[in-house]
Amino acid sequence: GVLGSGDFARSLAIRLVCSGFKVVVGSRNPKRKASLFPAAAEVTFQAEAVKKADVVFVAIFREHYSTLCDLADVLAGKILVDVSNNTEINHHKESNAEYLASLFPACTVVKGFNVVSAWTLQSGARDGNKQVLICSNNQEAKRTVAEIAQVMGFTPVDMGCMSSACEIENIPLRLLPAWKIPTFLALGLFLCFFTYNLIRQVIHPYIREKKNKLYKIPIEVVNTTLPCVSYVMLSLVYLPGVLAACSQLYYGTKYRRFPDWLDQWLQHRKQIGLLSFFCAALHAVYSLCLPMRRSHRYLLIETAIKQAVEKKMTIWVEEEVWRMEIYISVGIIALGLLSLLAITSLPSIANSLNWREFSFIQ
Amino acid sequence: GVLGSGDFARSLAIRLVCSGFKVVVGSRNPKRKASLFPAAAEVTFQAEAVKKADVVFVAIFREHYSTLCDLADVLAGKILVDVSNNTEINHHKESNAEYLASLFPACTVVKGFNVVSAWTLQSGARDGNKQVLICSNNQEAKRTVAEIAQVMGFTPVDMGCMSSACEIENIPLRLLPAWKIPTFLALGLFLCFFTYNLIRQVIHPYIREKKNKLYKIPIEVVNTTLPCVSYVMLSLVYLPGVLAACSQLYYGTKYRRFPDWLDQWLQHRKQIGLLSFFCAALHAVYSLCLPMRRSHRYLLIETAIKQAVEKKMTIWVEEEVWRMEIYISVGIIALGLLSLLAITSLPSIANSLNWREFSFIQ
Amino acid sequence: GVLGSGDFARSLAIRLVCSGFKVVVGSRNPKRKASLFPAAAEVTFQAEAVKKADVVFVAIFREHYSTLCDLADVLAGKILVDVSNNTEINHHKESNAEYLASLFPACTVVKGFNVVSAWTLQSGARDGNKQVLICSNNQEAKRTVAEIAQVMGFTPVDMGCMSSACEIENIPLRLLPAWKIPTFLALGLFLCFFTYNLIRQVIHPYIREKKNKLYKIPIEVVNTTLPCVSYVMLSLVYLPGVLAACSQLYYGTKYRRFPDWLDQWLQHRKQIGLLSFFCAALHAVYSLCLPMRRSHRYLLIETAIKQAVEKKMTIWVEEEVWRMEIYISVGIIALGLLSLLAITSLPSIANSLNWREFSFIQ
Repeated sequence: GVLGSGDFARSLAIRLVCSGFKVVVGSRNPKRKASLFPAAAEVTFQAEAVKKADVVFVAIFREHYSTLCDLADVLAGKILVDVSNNTEINHHKESNAEYLASLFPACTVVKGFNVVSAWTLQSGARDGNKQVLICSNNQEAKRTVAEIAQVMGFTPVDMGCMSSACEIENIPLRLLPAWKIPTFLALGLFLCFFTYNLIRQVIHPYIREKKNKLYKIPIEVVNTTLPCVSYVMLSLVYLPGVLAACSQLYYGTKYRRFPDWLDQWLQHRKQIGLLSFFCAALHAVYSLCLPMRRSHRYLLIETAIKQAVEKKMTIWVEEEVWRMEIYISVGIIALGLLSLLAITSLPSIANSLNWREFSFIQ
Repeated sequence: GVLGSGDFARSLAIRLVCSGFKVVVGSRNPKRKASLFPAAAEVTFQAEAVKKADVVFVAIFREHYSTLCDLADVLAGKILVDVSNNTEINHHKESNAEYLASLFPACTVVKGFNVVSAWTLQSGARDGNKQVLICSNNQEAKRTVAEIAQVMGFTPVDMGCMSSACEIENIPLRLLPAWKIPTFLALGLFLCFFTYNLIRQVIHPYIREKKNKLYKIPIEVVNTTLPCVSYVMLSLVYLPGVLAACSQLYYGTKYRRFPDWLDQWLQHRKQIGLLSFFCAALHAVYSLCLPMRRSHRYLLIETAIKQAVEKKMTIWVEEEVWRMEIYISVGIIALGLLSLLAITSLPSIANSLNWREFSFIQ
Repeated sequence: GVLGSGDFARSLAIRLVCSGFKVVVGSRNPKRKASLFPAAAEVTFQAEAVKKADVVFVAIFREHYSTLCDLADVLAGKILVDVSNNTEINHHKESNAEYLASLFPACTVVKGFNVVSAWTLQSGARDGNKQVLICSNNQEAKRTVAEIAQVMGFTPVDMGCMSSACEIENIPLRLLPAWKIPTFLALGLFLCFFTYNLIRQVIHPYIREKKNKLYKIPIEVVNTTLPCVSYVMLSLVYLPGVLAACSQLYYGTKYRRFPDWLDQWLQHRKQIGLLSFFCAALHAVYSLCLPMRRSHRYLLIETAIKQAVEKKMTIWVEEEVWRMEIYISVGIIALGLLSLLAITSLPSIANSLNWREFSFIQ
């Protein structure tokens, strides 16, 4: 059974029909709404629909839950699936599912399907996340809903008892929250270092020697900026650990909570580290592109011509050669090690390591 | 208990014995077959074997299921595990497991272990997929079989009720079905563009100016072909979405099914996108290799000599320099963004994103 | 309830309190220990604590389990969670959890939480592995503990019945055991080939022609060493399969166990292959860096000057050009294929392939 006639209700009905379920839709105006639903779904009045169904999906807004109170008698003993979402994180004190359960104490309420979009429901779980998070205080009801999700082509994930409902309802509102601060940090650092390098490499030579070096902006200036950003970000990964250790030594206990800013910082270390790796990888690619450029070719030929004309036969500078060889080989090794760290941060790799192995690699 | 004496039955018996289970094998000719099984497994007549066992693995072909009907009485109440596979997708109307269940209504049938090979069973789940997909209408039986799989070193995955059996039986027959069309598409596009570039860069100069440019084939022609393939593939990822939107606007509803070809196309977008990324990455590597080549070195030296002999001191062309700098930096940024898309298509990353985050990144 | 007052007991109590549970701690000296625990946790004598609790975490060493025997009466019927670890792999004949179960036959023992560290418990599961492996012979008790783990922010993983306890207890002691032999093998091979290349490319020219080529050590010598290591490692991936096939042909059966060394070798193939890929990838990066070096630039200019002075207009050697073009393009294709193999070895990708697809790619 599906209660509601919105976008989600329709998509749910289509998908259930396609997966071979017998679907009955409850609406307050079944005649007008019938055309919106697939022909195989029976559209009728709410009370009748509920009577015929064992599992009832409540696809209406939290604000209208109370309008269902007339149906309390027919709903008694049924499994109610709360598929609702909020518009803000922690909008209400109690989760929608717990509110529904409090309205209908005679029903078994299961929270689920809110993490999938109407579009995914309709088109089938093609790519992206196929998980449907389910929680309920009743094992049997949870299992029933999990099997429905399975048949619909999703992967049900048991999230435990009803107290997880609030967490599940907050998930679809999340937009990479852990990445916001590290990304702005990286952009800010990039801007600072870019300005400094622009002044040093382009504007200063222009003012002092009237040399036009503007062509350096897209690659060379960016390429000297990236490793600076990467270094600072990498140090910001390890600094909070040191501060935390100092704080523990100072207070003489490890059971004291860290101040909030330090706690936040400790939690963002992974994202800061991955952005540091991203900058380092970009720096590697930019550096490798240097000899491909026209400007590199022209400078090389011009040097050769000048030397040939002046009949200087050798231009070998041992110190410069060594500096470059060591610089490059240290860079490659550093990138290799950072790659290893980045790979172990993939969820499926991290899950196959125990904490001793994880901290060994880190 | 194991019924059957084929390859799979033997591997199953070996593995069960190694995992510490007491195994009894039922055969129609126990004397002749006993030597094939490990000494620790008792090989006896089918009826006797079934009597001693609580869980019976039916390791015989679907065609011979009916020969077990004599054992119906002794089998009653036991858990039968159907491990069979088909030779073709959807060969029979009902799945093997459902057919077995219909023959023995007094037994509890569990589908499982068909996704592992005889070789994996014998050698233990070393690499590759360790999952054993299990389905049954009986929770208790499913749990028992799941625990046997666990002890044998596999990861049991609950696939819900018996109606999933058909899907589970089709899995081992699959050979990357979603990749077939995109791969042929990429190969076809590669051939077309390769021929065009071969004519333009090698054959045309040869006919017009009698210049031998054959050395360009392995790297330069391939390198100009790859980004063309990558571009066309990338546009094929976003085109069907636009067509789908147009179709919805035209029909004025989003609840109408798309035509089959568009539906198929929408489903292959991920694979087309990954192949596009693969071509782009190869193009990057090929481009980076350009300055390493002997031919690059020779051309550079020859230009330098010519300029030196003609006493031209400068060969700097500002426009050419800028074109190359911008071309390379845009290429790097494009590759970086494509990498991000490719990483989020890894299953373990995709599972940690909600659909809002996933569509934000896409 | 938590029994014990060590580091783990305290962290567990803090986390349980933070997750909203009512916690009672049992100690033999509650007055002295009370200050170590959060204020919200009640610290009392062991017998009293056990009386008030439904689930009792036993956070004391295996050696002191017998001291709890006085509490046998109050413990009867409770769920005991064994969180202990050993200091050596397979230290005792039976696992700690099974030993605890044998001491308190009237209790339901669940093994769990030993794979998380005290630090992770305290700070919450931020990064790394969030899984808590749980096993027990009692389904209901296992589910209760799994839900506690869920509420605490971990991902409970059902590992089946109590016989898995030994395996679970060994996990935290593991330190990448499968990587030890392959890593030493790779290091050994690297040293051998490095020495050989050092003699050939640096020491030999110095002795024979007094040429100082020391600058070649950091990049060129390493770069000629890496592909040798990669090749040998790659052949070591495929050799044991051939040997296994020969052994099967020789003995005329595939049901004979391989000798131990071959078995070990077969099990390490994945790690050997990944190290081979790592060396190949490093070789690619080193090769791409070659034209960036000062030494490359100097040698190029010197050749150009020499040619210009001697008025030789062409230095094109067709054979050399072709050798390099083919060498590079074969290298790129080989690296592309190895990348594919490396990607399919990621757990989340491998789990989405059936064994037919996996062996097709391999």
